[in-house]
Amino acid sequence: MEQAAAPEHGTEQTAAPAPGTRRPGGRTARTRAAVRDAVLTGLAEHGYPGLTVEYVAEHSGVHKTTLYRRWGGVEGLVADALDLAGEDTWSPPDTGSLEGDLRALAREVCDAFADAADAAAPTAFIAAAFQSDRAADALRAFYAERFSRCEAVVARAVARGEAPADTDAGAVVRAVSAPLFLRLFVTREPIGTALADQSATAVLAAVRAGAFSAEESAPGA
Amino acid sequence: MEQAAAPEHGTEQTAAPAPGTRRPGGRTARTRAAVRDAVLTGLAEHGYPGLTVEYVAEHSGVHKTTLYRRWGGVEGLVADALDLAGEDTWSPPDTGSLEGDLRALAREVCDAFADAADAAAPTAFIAAAFQSDRAADALRAFYAERFSRCEAVVARAVARGEAPADTDAGAVVRAVSAPLFLRLFVTREPIGTALADQSATAVLAAVRAGAFSAEESAPGA
Repeated sequence: MEQAAAPEHGTEQTAAPAPGTRRPGGRTARTRAAVRDAVLTGLAEHGYPGLTVEYVAEHSGVHKTTLYRRWGGVEGLVADALDLAGEDTWSPPDTGSLEGDLRALAREVCDAFADAADAAAPTAFIAAAFQSDRAADALRAFYAERFSRCEAVVARAVARGEAPADTDAGAVVRAVSAPLFLRLFVTREPIGTALADQSATAVLAAVRAGAFSAEESAPGA
Repeated sequence: MEQAAAPEHGTEQTAAPAPGTRRPGGRTARTRAAVRDAVLTGLAEHGYPGLTVEYVAEHSGVHKTTLYRRWGGVEGLVADALDLAGEDTWSPPDTGSLEGDLRALAREVCDAFADAADAAAPTAFIAAAFQSDRAADALRAFYAERFSRCEAVVARAVARGEAPADTDAGAVVRAVSAPLFLRLFVTREPIGTALADQSATAVLAAVRAGAFSAEESAPGA
């Protein structure tokens, strides 16, 4: 489709890796990245119900039979794209205070979903999890790992004496972004910086009051 | 499909209204309820991508051409089922304290999604909103109205002197359930009573600290 216009400037050699995706793994890693990029584009354009192995083959330059052999099908392709998304080097904000870090975390959620083009792939992953158990497992693993990185924010706050030692870090970092995700994907309401700040302020107050302390409640999840 | 077994006990006369759905509107209201029931069953069984007008016709006893004429198609059917879901008489808990009410609210979310059969329809509505703007609009309206009923919890707390007069009631009632919805539909993690209680405890502490006061932050959404 878009490929009709591509030969003019030659930027759509489908088998070539996108900038920044060349990995030490060489050809296999490049293929995986090309397939991942095609999956992201397909999800953004058509959503999970419209994504096909044919689309990924066409847009990655990787043959359909190879895709079926190595990824099994659409579910496996989506799960692998999510696994790859989790292999980045993102680390949580480190502003020097718990208040600053929580605020920055919440604002990052806003920023990630503020632009429709940027939001398309993560939104499609969340949507795919409703329709595919394998996508749901991959999404669970992605967020578990992502939020466990975020827990550093709470560990540093404890070290600085800003939070009780037994603060449930996982619950804190989830609570900060939860009101934003609720509005994005359940209540379908607008979000923004003011809401991000309000959420950070509320969670900070709760942490200071010991409401996330293990003694107060320990859900484990 | 299940209809094969139904004639034995005669409980599946598809055009008859389910108990409790008979309305003053008479025949039209009964038809609407029968169609709604068929939509809920279809969403629970097949999800939004698998729901068809044919399925709804077969399970409601309402002719396909009537469904197209009055509801336009699958999107309209789903939106109307959500509109009907919002016409119930549910009211938020009134336990006598803000702590009790917030805890009860959070636990209601747990209960609503604890049983797979009960959870199927609301989950399908949330999933449908990813694929249909009309379903998203209906979902937004449903939750806006539902959370506005919940605000009574905060109004009563203000009247009892348990919360600052300028508390952002809409933000409070959303913040209580947000960590549960986040785990249900984004991070795909288990939820339970302990998590509900932790969320209520945290939001209560934030309310008491004035973190939801208009002066502190006023996102409006």
